[in-house]
Amino acid sequence: MANILDKISKVADIKRLTTEELNTLCSEVRNAILTKVSKTGGHLGPNLGIVELTVALHYVFNSPIDKFVWDVSHQSYAHKILTGRKDAFLFEDKYKTVTGFTSPKESEHDFFTIGHTSTSVSLASGLAKARDFKGTKENIVAIIGDGSLSGGEAFEGLDNVAEFKSNFITIINDNEMSIAENHGGIYGNLALLRKTKGEAELNIFKALGFKYVYIEEGNNVDVLIEELQKIKDLNEPIVVHIHTVKGNGYSHAEENKERFHWSMPFDIESGKTFVQNAGENYKRITINHITEKLQKDDRIVVINAAVPGALDLVEFRENHPDRYFDVGIAEEHAIAFASGLASQGMKPFAFFPSTFIQRTYDQISQDLCINNNPAIIMVENAGISGSDATHLGIFDIPMMSNIPNLVYLAPANKEEVTSMIDWAMEQKDFPVAIRISSSPIKELKNKLSLKYELNKFEKVTEGEKVAIIGLGNFFNLAEEVSEELQKQGITPTLINPRFITGVDEAMLTSLLENHDTVITLEDGLLNGGFGEKISRFFGPTKMRVFNYGAHKEFTDGVPMNELYQRYHLTAEQIVADILK
Amino acid sequence: MANILDKISKVADIKRLTTEELNTLCSEVRNAILTKVSKTGGHLGPNLGIVELTVALHYVFNSPIDKFVWDVSHQSYAHKILTGRKDAFLFEDKYKTVTGFTSPKESEHDFFTIGHTSTSVSLASGLAKARDFKGTKENIVAIIGDGSLSGGEAFEGLDNVAEFKSNFITIINDNEMSIAENHGGIYGNLALLRKTKGEAELNIFKALGFKYVYIEEGNNVDVLIEELQKIKDLNEPIVVHIHTVKGNGYSHAEENKERFHWSMPFDIESGKTFVQNAGENYKRITINHITEKLQKDDRIVVINAAVPGALDLVEFRENHPDRYFDVGIAEEHAIAFASGLASQGMKPFAFFPSTFIQRTYDQISQDLCINNNPAIIMVENAGISGSDATHLGIFDIPMMSNIPNLVYLAPANKEEVTSMIDWAMEQKDFPVAIRISSSPIKELKNKLSLKYELNKFEKVTEGEKVAIIGLGNFFNLAEEVSEELQKQGITPTLINPRFITGVDEAMLTSLLENHDTVITLEDGLLNGGFGEKISRFFGPTKMRVFNYGAHKEFTDGVPMNELYQRYHLTAEQIVADILK
Repeated sequence: MANILDKISKVADIKRLTTEELNTLCSEVRNAILTKVSKTGGHLGPNLGIVELTVALHYVFNSPIDKFVWDVSHQSYAHKILTGRKDAFLFEDKYKTVTGFTSPKESEHDFFTIGHTSTSVSLASGLAKARDFKGTKENIVAIIGDGSLSGGEAFEGLDNVAEFKSNFITIINDNEMSIAENHGGIYGNLALLRKTKGEAELNIFKALGFKYVYIEEGNNVDVLIEELQKIKDLNEPIVVHIHTVKGNGYSHAEENKERFHWSMPFDIESGKTFVQNAGENYKRITINHITEKLQKDDRIVVINAAVPGALDLVEFRENHPDRYFDVGIAEEHAIAFASGLASQGMKPFAFFPSTFIQRTYDQISQDLCINNNPAIIMVENAGISGSDATHLGIFDIPMMSNIPNLVYLAPANKEEVTSMIDWAMEQKDFPVAIRISSSPIKELKNKLSLKYELNKFEKVTEGEKVAIIGLGNFFNLAEEVSEELQKQGITPTLINPRFITGVDEAMLTSLLENHDTVITLEDGLLNGGFGEKISRFFGPTKMRVFNYGAHKEFTDGVPMNELYQRYHLTAEQIVADILK
Repeated sequence: MANILDKISKVADIKRLTTEELNTLCSEVRNAILTKVSKTGGHLGPNLGIVELTVALHYVFNSPIDKFVWDVSHQSYAHKILTGRKDAFLFEDKYKTVTGFTSPKESEHDFFTIGHTSTSVSLASGLAKARDFKGTKENIVAIIGDGSLSGGEAFEGLDNVAEFKSNFITIINDNEMSIAENHGGIYGNLALLRKTKGEAELNIFKALGFKYVYIEEGNNVDVLIEELQKIKDLNEPIVVHIHTVKGNGYSHAEENKERFHWSMPFDIESGKTFVQNAGENYKRITINHITEKLQKDDRIVVINAAVPGALDLVEFRENHPDRYFDVGIAEEHAIAFASGLASQGMKPFAFFPSTFIQRTYDQISQDLCINNNPAIIMVENAGISGSDATHLGIFDIPMMSNIPNLVYLAPANKEEVTSMIDWAMEQKDFPVAIRISSSPIKELKNKLSLKYELNKFEKVTEGEKVAIIGLGNFFNLAEEVSEELQKQGITPTLINPRFITGVDEAMLTSLLENHDTVITLEDGLLNGGFGEKISRFFGPTKMRVFNYGAHKEFTDGVPMNELYQRYHLTAEQIVADILK
């Protein structure tokens, strides 16, 4: 029974509510979020914790004249509900009408599409300076969670806006948590500030030059409104440090904050997810194998940047705390740290989802690859998916594979996942990255050799006329294309290239003898990817080359089968293309 | 007369010197640096400022058991002199035996090849943890200049090592300067700490959890030795904040710190460089044109990250301080800031050298391109060069051009530099980057249209059999190849593609009619670059395609003509290749 929420069709309606109604509104918003997320999955804890702050912000400020920038924007559900998008939370048939992040396409109250952390202050700083140039007077508000503060971009932003001479409000939503627990010296300072109710002399924000206020009751809408009204329209940069409870108002989420940061659909009563652990997957195989190797090899350490859950590292963290480093949201540091460890003979495995490895390009190039230290990077959740535009796993190959010295491997099946980890550990000559597909495990029809020599492809079956080079998990698709071709009377050659960063010139040259067509298949972006190197190699020859992979676009929640159709990633389409 | 330096053949020799001899040694080291740099060019101010600290470090600690990591490592000249490489500074015929940065290939006292800023703490943190795993007890020392502190990676590193429970020494070499003057809130805190001799309550390092000491006399070797001896072997992380004078001991460098950060060869007496301003160049044309447009367009702002000198922005800074933003070494912030400005209708030009644009991949993708804000990125100093491995300008095309939405332009001559800036400003649909070559200006034989339509190439001359696609400044090379071919009786088609990120399918398809060979030329890395897209396009056809550009390698100070030969970037080699 959404009595108050029913009345809220525009943000101005919030300003007319009584204190009691505001509190009721918070409950209704919280219920809407809980109900929807329990059915669709999504970010729960961050959103439940920030309901009161969101209501207070919209009460005190005048959005969209005043401009809110939500860091990561995974906590913008309440904001969406209050800015004309409540139906997407109240009615099941409308659930899909909004994304999980802010989006200027959805609403004039959203200024950026955001999905990676630590960007809000810098983005908002541009809004603030544009305002100053135009001579208007609106408030600019960046809302950033404590977990995002460890990311370098957040520091760069804070360091810069600290010197502004005009209005700039940074709200630190301190729920004592990153995605997992917080790591890093700044969290010691936040804890001290919480303990002293903001009074401690050691204050990183004041040290940077900010005016600073602390609000202990971050889930009390009345207090928030009172305090925010005091700092509104201030003509200098201020940090408003607010203490909130992640998962506030839903006991399961309050008690198990990491588990409910993001959840699959779940039963509200019990808190249990409906989807059972689907059993074996590439991630699990990866960490299990590394754990096993750790028994006999004390050079191994495991590094990640605040996403142990997404990388299936929680069990490893529990069992091997001395070998486990969560550096917080600090991907750049993670790579340099790994390079330093590897330079001293350690074997660091630095784990990243494909979408977040993007946050450390220069460190891979400079700190790691120029120094050629044999650290190992595990790139997980890689491949074409139905993800949001901000979380695609298709860019890692173009980004990483064009950096000299790095050896990037693509395992074609689960046996290759483990044998490639072994190979990476045995060699000391290069940094190695291994690409772990987000796709489910599939058994191959063919048996692979599992023996590696640098940049040597494996000819898995010998045929003629057509050679199919199926990279990593797309070797499976290569087998399907092969079957389809055999129906047409062609027995193709099947190649497992294994080395994303290699071009096996000897093998490719040998294909010229009795092949006229080469097909490359990769589960990632075509532009700058693996297939284009094969096209370049054969460029001066008569060989016809067809490259298959993702097109250069930010797809936003487009279903995977639709993308496969669009990119011609089915055996039928490919065979039709090449026979044309 | 290097009396003391003569006696120093290994670092242990330093430990036997008297106080007086140590001071003499500092003078001799300083003279050696000044003399060499005056003849070869190089980083002067940073090295002169840190002579005493370097002598003190080698006196107090036991390198290479104790490990020093020099941030950026452009200030490691004194360290090189004291660790067996003094001849490279004392004898003109040996000058080229060392690089300008630390290098493990040169000496066991160097642990990393470093050339980009803000990495030392993170790299050293790996050395520290490896030490802890091995159970040894050596000191790990990161020496970082104040200018590098604004970079996000430095903060991520400090945030992490603050929680270490073992020895980790971070020396902040505070000379009150970035490369240019410092910007950002942290510099206010450093100033406060200098003013209070380290006693101020607001202390960002203490707030992060570090033990902290301040040394005012950072160019007094006796004081430094005494203070460093106190903190040696400490079993917790400490920040040692040292106040030094950039350019110390050479009055011209002390007085003009920015000019002498890095200098071309100069006369020691007068401080004047021998090389006169070579006149017109692409950089100057770029900023002059933007300055001119600013007269009629108040949307323009110019952003850079601490390198106004390298980008020829000093004059603009003086004349338009209200339109000029130096964000400090904070490339990630620079891009997000530009995106925010552009979202509000401003026209920010964010300037980066090609080698430093690498530091902001994720922000280009997420903060800028997903949001499709029409900011303009000027990528300068781009192209194949004889630079150090850490400062190559060949990676920007693979890194940037495979990101969706970004339109990346390559002007072929100086008229195109200005007309492309005009085009970028007139459109509001995409973020645009413009690639400014580091090569000298050359006049083309052909006249270009200077009119643009998205992703449309320009057919500059119409021929047959062979089409040459010369990207950006390599259009000049295309003309040379054309002349060479004409000697062979072939009149080729000449194409100026203009859009690095475009593939003009209609034009390329039309070539199939009366051409059998396409040549692509690009002044950057082949892998993931422009030419490979052309190869991919023609892959399924009979067209022969030859891609020319740089190979995937970190070249380190290899002369440019040698690289051109290696990569077959001369008209003679190219014609020989395709006629083979």
